[in-house]
Amino acid sequence: MSRYATPNPDFAARVRDSFGRQPFMKMLGAELIEVRAGHCDIALDYRAALSQQHGYFHGGIIGTLADNAGGYAAFTVAPADASILTVEYKLNIVAPGDGERLIARGQVVKPGRTLVVCRVEVFVVKSGQEKLCAIALATLMLMAGKSDGPA
Amino acid sequence: MSRYATPNPDFAARVRDSFGRQPFMKMLGAELIEVRAGHCDIALDYRAALSQQHGYFHGGIIGTLADNAGGYAAFTVAPADASILTVEYKLNIVAPGDGERLIARGQVVKPGRTLVVCRVEVFVVKSGQEKLCAIALATLMLMAGKSDGPA
Amino acid sequence: MSRYATPNPDFAARVRDSFGRQPFMKMLGAELIEVRAGHCDIALDYRAALSQQHGYFHGGIIGTLADNAGGYAAFTVAPADASILTVEYKLNIVAPGDGERLIARGQVVKPGRTLVVCRVEVFVVKSGQEKLCAIALATLMLMAGKSDGPA
Amino acid sequence: MSRYATPNPDFAARVRDSFGRQPFMKMLGAELIEVRAGHCDIALDYRAALSQQHGYFHGGIIGTLADNAGGYAAFTVAPADASILTVEYKLNIVAPGDGERLIARGQVVKPGRTLVVCRVEVFVVKSGQEKLCAIALATLMLMAGKSDGPA
Repeated sequence: MSRYATPNPDFAARVRDSFGRQPFMKMLGAELIEVRAGHCDIALDYRAALSQQHGYFHGGIIGTLADNAGGYAAFTVAPADASILTVEYKLNIVAPGDGERLIARGQVVKPGRTLVVCRVEVFVVKSGQEKLCAIALATLMLMAGKSDGPA
Repeated sequence: MSRYATPNPDFAARVRDSFGRQPFMKMLGAELIEVRAGHCDIALDYRAALSQQHGYFHGGIIGTLADNAGGYAAFTVAPADASILTVEYKLNIVAPGDGERLIARGQVVKPGRTLVVCRVEVFVVKSGQEKLCAIALATLMLMAGKSDGPA
Repeated sequence: MSRYATPNPDFAARVRDSFGRQPFMKMLGAELIEVRAGHCDIALDYRAALSQQHGYFHGGIIGTLADNAGGYAAFTVAPADASILTVEYKLNIVAPGDGERLIARGQVVKPGRTLVVCRVEVFVVKSGQEKLCAIALATLMLMAGKSDGPA
Repeated sequence: MSRYATPNPDFAARVRDSFGRQPFMKMLGAELIEVRAGHCDIALDYRAALSQQHGYFHGGIIGTLADNAGGYAAFTVAPADASILTVEYKLNIVAPGDGERLIARGQVVKPGRTLVVCRVEVFVVKSGQEKLCAIALATLMLMAGKSDGPA
C-alpha cells in the first residue's frame, strides 16, 4: 500500500511514458527502476564517458538523476492532465561518485495543489555496497492542463 | 583588471587543463568560453540528444553547466596545489531551456581559505537573444595538497 | 525609474502596511528603510539580546531579515489583491554578523505570475563599513485573492 | 544506543551550555528539549510577539529554529575543542506556522571531518497534533581549536 494518494490511477504508465521521451536520459543510459505513488527511483551504470577529471561520476550527472527522480516522484501525485516543472532544487554532494552505479531515490515530502516538495537521496554502488553520495530537496510545480509533450 | 586576487597566476591554464580532462563535458559538447580570476563561462550548443520531453535543454544539463561554471570560477582563486570540490548548490530554473545555446556564467561571491561561494547565471540563447534561464548559488571546498587528477 | 513593472501603483504603501503588522519585526526592532518596485531593504541595529554565543548577530536574525527583504521585494511586484508566501530560500552565511547594524537588500530576479524569485544580500555594518555577511536566493508564491491579514 | 559516533562523550552538556549562552534563544523563549548524538530538538511556544501579519509564527522564527536544531545536531558530533559554524541552509516552508508550538528536529545526515550535513524538520503543534511545517538541509563547518564563546 502506498503512503500517498494520487488523483491519477495510471501514474506509473504516465511516468514511464514521459521518462521514455527524454532523449538525454537515453544518452546517459539511465533506467527507471521503480515507480510508486510518491516515489521514483532512477539508476545509471558507470562508463568513462560519464566521468569528471578524477574518473568518478560527474557531479552534473548526480544532479541530473536527483532532479529527475524528484520530478517523477512529484509526477506520480499529479492529476492526469497536469504537467510538471522543476522550480528549484538544492543538492549536497556528500561523497564522490566513486562506483559502478548510481541510484537516485526520490520521495514526495509534501504534496500540494500547485507545489510539491520532494527529498532525493542518491547512492553510489561500489562492489555491491550502497553508499550515500548526495541528498537533495526539490520544489516542483504542477501545471494544470499543460501537455507533457512538445509545445 | 580582475576583481579577484588569486594565489595562482596560472589559474587559466589550470582551469582549461582540468576542464579538458572531463569526459562528460566532451560528451555534452560543452566549451569553456571565458576564464578570468573569479569568473568562468561555459557554453553548449543545442542538439536533440540533450533534450527532455518537451524538446528543450534538459534541466540536468542546465544544472551541470551551473555546477561546472561555479566550480571553475572557484578554481580560479585556488592555490596551485589545491583541488576543488562541490559541497552543494541550489538552482532555480526560471525559464525553460528553449533555445539554440546555453551559457553559464559563474562568479565568485566570497572567496575563502577553505570554502568559496559562487553565484551562477545560466542564459538560454534563442534567435541570438540571451534570456535568463536559471540562477544558482554554490558552495565549493578547496582541498589543499589534493591532486586534480585520478587518485 | 524602476527596473520592474508592477501591477500595483500603491505597492510601497502596501508593503509598509504589511511590514507594520508583523509583531516579530517590532520585537526585533527592524526597520523598512527602502521600498522600490522589485526591491526592498530592511535594517536592524545591534543589541545584546539579538546575539548568539559569540556575541554576534544570531544567524536566525540574518535569515529572518533575508526572508523578509526577499518577501517584500516580491510583494512590490504583486497585484493589489494578492498576498505573498515564502516557498523556500537558501542562505549562505559568508561572514559572522559582527557589527552594529544589519542591512538586508532584497531584489527581484525573476517576476512571474505565480512564482517570484529574489536574490538577497545581507550586509553587516561595522565602524560604518558595510561588509557582505550573507547571500540568499528565495522563491515566493503569489496567492491571488488572498488577504494579507489574519484569516 | 545512538546511530552516530561522537569524539566528545560530553556532547550533551556542551550543547546545553552553548545553547544557554545564546541571548536570542532566551528572547524567543526557545527550549532545548532533546539532545542525542547526531540529533537535537528545539521547541518554542507561541505568543503574539512571535507572529507575522497573519498571526502565525513568523517564517524567520521557523528558519531560526531550523538553523539552530541543525547546528546543534552537528555540534553533538564535533570534537570537544571545535566550534561550529552554519555555512548555509535551504528551507522549504510547507505549511503556515499556525499552532501553539513549534518543534524543530535536527538530524545529522553526513558527519565529516570539516563539514557536517544535517536535515531538519520543523513541526507546528495545533490542538496537540504535530504537522510538518518546514524542512531544511544545512551544511555546518567544524572549526578545530576555535572557542565556542566570545572572541
